[in-house]
Amino acid sequence: MYSFKSDYSEGAHPKILEALMTTNLEQTDGYSMDPHSKNAARLIRQAIGRPDADIHIVVGGTQANTILIASALRPYQAVISAATGHICVHETGAIEATGHKIIAMPAPDGKLTAALIEQALAAHTDEHMVRPKLVYISQPTELGTLYSRAEIEEIRACCDRYGLYLFADGARLACALASSGTDLTLKDLAWLTDAFYIGGTKNGALFGEALVLCNEALKPDFRYHIKQRGGMLAKGRLLGIQFECLFTDGLYEQIGAHANQMAMKLRDCFVSCGFPMLAESDTNQQFPILPDALVEQVSQEYSFEVQQKFPDGRTAIRFVTSWATKEADIDRFCSWFTQISQGYC
Amino acid sequence: MYSFKSDYSEGAHPKILEALMTTNLEQTDGYSMDPHSKNAARLIRQAIGRPDADIHIVVGGTQANTILIASALRPYQAVISAATGHICVHETGAIEATGHKIIAMPAPDGKLTAALIEQALAAHTDEHMVRPKLVYISQPTELGTLYSRAEIEEIRACCDRYGLYLFADGARLACALASSGTDLTLKDLAWLTDAFYIGGTKNGALFGEALVLCNEALKPDFRYHIKQRGGMLAKGRLLGIQFECLFTDGLYEQIGAHANQMAMKLRDCFVSCGFPMLAESDTNQQFPILPDALVEQVSQEYSFEVQQKFPDGRTAIRFVTSWATKEADIDRFCSWFTQISQGYC
Amino acid sequence: MYSFKSDYSEGAHPKILEALMTTNLEQTDGYSMDPHSKNAARLIRQAIGRPDADIHIVVGGTQANTILIASALRPYQAVISAATGHICVHETGAIEATGHKIIAMPAPDGKLTAALIEQALAAHTDEHMVRPKLVYISQPTELGTLYSRAEIEEIRACCDRYGLYLFADGARLACALASSGTDLTLKDLAWLTDAFYIGGTKNGALFGEALVLCNEALKPDFRYHIKQRGGMLAKGRLLGIQFECLFTDGLYEQIGAHANQMAMKLRDCFVSCGFPMLAESDTNQQFPILPDALVEQVSQEYSFEVQQKFPDGRTAIRFVTSWATKEADIDRFCSWFTQISQGYC
Amino acid sequence: MYSFKSDYSEGAHPKILEALMTTNLEQTDGYSMDPHSKNAARLIRQAIGRPDADIHIVVGGTQANTILIASALRPYQAVISAATGHICVHETGAIEATGHKIIAMPAPDGKLTAALIEQALAAHTDEHMVRPKLVYISQPTELGTLYSRAEIEEIRACCDRYGLYLFADGARLACALASSGTDLTLKDLAWLTDAFYIGGTKNGALFGEALVLCNEALKPDFRYHIKQRGGMLAKGRLLGIQFECLFTDGLYEQIGAHANQMAMKLRDCFVSCGFPMLAESDTNQQFPILPDALVEQVSQEYSFEVQQKFPDGRTAIRFVTSWATKEADIDRFCSWFTQISQGYC
Repeated sequence: MYSFKSDYSEGAHPKILEALMTTNLEQTDGYSMDPHSKNAARLIRQAIGRPDADIHIVVGGTQANTILIASALRPYQAVISAATGHICVHETGAIEATGHKIIAMPAPDGKLTAALIEQALAAHTDEHMVRPKLVYISQPTELGTLYSRAEIEEIRACCDRYGLYLFADGARLACALASSGTDLTLKDLAWLTDAFYIGGTKNGALFGEALVLCNEALKPDFRYHIKQRGGMLAKGRLLGIQFECLFTDGLYEQIGAHANQMAMKLRDCFVSCGFPMLAESDTNQQFPILPDALVEQVSQEYSFEVQQKFPDGRTAIRFVTSWATKEADIDRFCSWFTQISQGYC
Repeated sequence: MYSFKSDYSEGAHPKILEALMTTNLEQTDGYSMDPHSKNAARLIRQAIGRPDADIHIVVGGTQANTILIASALRPYQAVISAATGHICVHETGAIEATGHKIIAMPAPDGKLTAALIEQALAAHTDEHMVRPKLVYISQPTELGTLYSRAEIEEIRACCDRYGLYLFADGARLACALASSGTDLTLKDLAWLTDAFYIGGTKNGALFGEALVLCNEALKPDFRYHIKQRGGMLAKGRLLGIQFECLFTDGLYEQIGAHANQMAMKLRDCFVSCGFPMLAESDTNQQFPILPDALVEQVSQEYSFEVQQKFPDGRTAIRFVTSWATKEADIDRFCSWFTQISQGYC
Repeated sequence: MYSFKSDYSEGAHPKILEALMTTNLEQTDGYSMDPHSKNAARLIRQAIGRPDADIHIVVGGTQANTILIASALRPYQAVISAATGHICVHETGAIEATGHKIIAMPAPDGKLTAALIEQALAAHTDEHMVRPKLVYISQPTELGTLYSRAEIEEIRACCDRYGLYLFADGARLACALASSGTDLTLKDLAWLTDAFYIGGTKNGALFGEALVLCNEALKPDFRYHIKQRGGMLAKGRLLGIQFECLFTDGLYEQIGAHANQMAMKLRDCFVSCGFPMLAESDTNQQFPILPDALVEQVSQEYSFEVQQKFPDGRTAIRFVTSWATKEADIDRFCSWFTQISQGYC
Repeated sequence: MYSFKSDYSEGAHPKILEALMTTNLEQTDGYSMDPHSKNAARLIRQAIGRPDADIHIVVGGTQANTILIASALRPYQAVISAATGHICVHETGAIEATGHKIIAMPAPDGKLTAALIEQALAAHTDEHMVRPKLVYISQPTELGTLYSRAEIEEIRACCDRYGLYLFADGARLACALASSGTDLTLKDLAWLTDAFYIGGTKNGALFGEALVLCNEALKPDFRYHIKQRGGMLAKGRLLGIQFECLFTDGLYEQIGAHANQMAMKLRDCFVSCGFPMLAESDTNQQFPILPDALVEQVSQEYSFEVQQKFPDGRTAIRFVTSWATKEADIDRFCSWFTQISQGYC
């Protein structure tokens, strides 16, 4: 059965595997003190246009979020996040496990705004309550939606007004950067946030997420935080080698562009068959809302995740594409779906 | 410069890389719910002779220690460890970061005993003190020494007497299993501990440590702990594939045996040149004590770690071998060292 | 200026001070191992009708909530609370500081229901999310509202169905017990919850909250938790002596009854002047919604807390009564308010 | 049976109880925002000669230690303490529960030195280990010994050299200040430490320890830390009123002086009877080393704590005096002991 369940169903982009083979017998220092890690950092600094940034590549996304947030906050400080944010829902309380409350703001499209941030601040007025200190956003969001440059600038201005850090989770950043749905560039992100991470796992790597620290205040002793939270890999070179590949010859953006193209074909198919989408996603996750009986029929041939059930007998399901999605598989799906869905419109 | 600094200086055993290549385009479920992870667990259960054990493969050693220990303890409970234990010294307070005190007992050879455990218990008598609940040992220890079967049985009996868990860190377990310096088998370990981990990183894998839960009390909801502590890999299959390799056709023990053989050649060289060793290590770490001037001379050609400086002008240094150590390199070192060290005896 | 700001504006009920004087020179063991603490526990067990309950008196409410909750949960488990719950808002993230997420459910009257609990459970399905394990309620709630016996029974049944603990915060329990607004008795509470606390601070004591552990699973080693969280008082007898007083000759309920009577006079005054109340409170907190100009005028003569501002130019303010509120002061307020408010209706 | 077990066996000094009576019906704001708390802070600032210090009075000693230390440290930072330090042994891992390791240095007389601190620093060299950041000392120590001014100056210089905070636990500070065994004054302490606390519980108060923050870096948002750790008392005035008393008309030092005088009489008695003392204590704790049979005989008439058992059939026991110890009781004990101990010398 073909799977549209995730962008981590396969291994790694062939170029990455090849690099791991080629370098296998090199002797290097451990814990990301090797030349590949240093070179990857150099390439990333170049790509983001910030020669002053600190780069730390850690193994996974929950680690990246937890290590950054726990390192940035004093014990009584809290995070503001959209209620759909990955840290709110899908990380088993990893942030709370480091002692910090997440203030979850309702945001139907998954996007925070300056107004939502100010609403959170207004509700936290004195020492009987936590003190909001860090704003967590995702680009793209969990719903595949995207912040524009103007939207991030507005959030940045709000953070500056109130002394808040802005941190962006870029688990699927390649798709955001390659999407026509936003004008926000990688360089913009690096100048508008205090920290963000460039996702590897969901963008062609075996694993690895590159944390980018832009604000000086976040940099001191960061490797202590990584080590303490279990995020320091003995063979750290593996992380370096993979990001060297991703940031050579435009591979990272190519991977995002391919995933998006495959997703746009899926979206066109669903829309042209007459089905609404849960959110306006211009990236590699698509959420068609289908009648339950059709969902059942699709599930006979394809696997996917259920996003949300509606009381009216419809369900939003999630289709995800990646570097590994072949156009032929998309075309086969679309023609099959167009046929079977006719009775349901 | 040739490096004896660690057993994680190179990539992975070629069979492991090959398996990653072969399986790269398979579509599998994420988060270790894939067939390779299940097969690896089956192979490990078979090797340890405990069909009832739960197997969870996580990315690194600090993670393995932290997740197991934090999952096993109530907030006021503490760990007993040798003062040289990895969790005491080299994990940046990762255990304390989850809220638990480590009671460090002095043990010159790195090995705990029932007597030391009872001494720790005797000092913790009421609710004004932490309550010891878990005994942490390593096989082999940080100093390369090994527990015999009788020694572990004595510790097990002590743990039973006082209701303590026994957990063994097997970061370099392949070397312990292949060593003539102990009669303790993998099956013994599985029957004598409540939990242990089978190290991958330092035994030929790119990364990965297989936690083995033997005691029923430690099993419920364990995946929640893994996820919360950032130890759940999206492409969990990578962990499964590597341990499938390690536990097929005896690869794991072959890797340990080779590393040990190379280390024994080093030991013979140091001893025959007249230098004492810091500890009696029958495994892949050797700690010769050399005059500082000789240390300086060796450091011109080889890299290694400094273990301990003595006030009398001598230093214990650490040489580590692995699956990747070539016999020709060892032979070249030995003949060179024999020559240069002559003036120092 | 007369203050209606809180029920902790004055010291302690005279009987409590007297008992502290009388016992001052007795020599007793520390840390609540003294005869007064034992006697207080005996009196409480008698009052609640559970000879099997464990009683631990700690200094304050945040402590009581934190110690109980942190002791009851494994690291990945979470609390379900009404969004207005004291632990959600007014304890500076004390629960999160022990590592646990609070799942905040919207409840306009401050009361959880079985339906809300099931909704929280339905949203937490696997190991990528926290696992709800404890339901936190307050009797009375932060809004002065009360659970009936039937409502608590329904919640209890829900907790039993899903294996959840039920814990009740009784910071103002005396007022709940003395109120005509609920049929829930102290004995009911002791048989329907797994744990609850009997508030002292807001019910006539200098300080002190008596935690009652009903469920065997919560009892072992509880004093370790108290000590670790800083809740064990060296002169623990102070806590015992105060609760001996409160549970002798019906003092606890008398204090609640008096505070309620004073509050009912205030409510009648506001209502008869034509002002709506924010919530239907039958206890010692009253929340009249007044025009802003009238609020301003009242604030010239009386102090109180602001509860909620409305966009239409009105504000809900909070008036609190206690054992120390004199009927003459209430009468003076009511007649003054009736006069000044006439222009605002 | 008369008790020498502790300095918290009785209630409070009569002047303190009287002040609580006198002020009982005053209406004040809660949470230490009342005039008494402000006045107490003023009196303390005056007594310590630092008008710039921040004063926060919390309920107990474990709270004072935990709140200060947890507020001062980043997650990977650690405390250096003598192995006998209260936080190391007698607080049930409260510091570790906030995530921080305590590096315990052996110090037979309970006193840290610059040399011991440097030894701890030398063993913690990189990000694989915790980073020492705060030095914890007690004046007097757990063994009743005292730091001289010169000793504290040497520690201060060491802390300055390495960027460490110096924090002094003053649970029994009144006795240190009134003792002839040290030249260190309260003002010295305020200028030589970054923070310390002035103990109330063991020096005549019902409860309460006044944290003094001298270093600007420790001051911001401190009330958030107090609230989060459960150390903020609703009726905070109780703390203020008690410290107003203690710092009026020299009561605090009188209490220390009396306790010391009583202790010196005990010491003279033990010494003149020919028994050695465990440590040279010039304060209110005395640790005679007696034959076990004599210990048994004393225990028939007096209660006390056992400090340390020796293998040679002797035991060090602890006698503690306080404001409440009557000279007549001391005299009666001394004459009785002199008599019964004659057969044991």
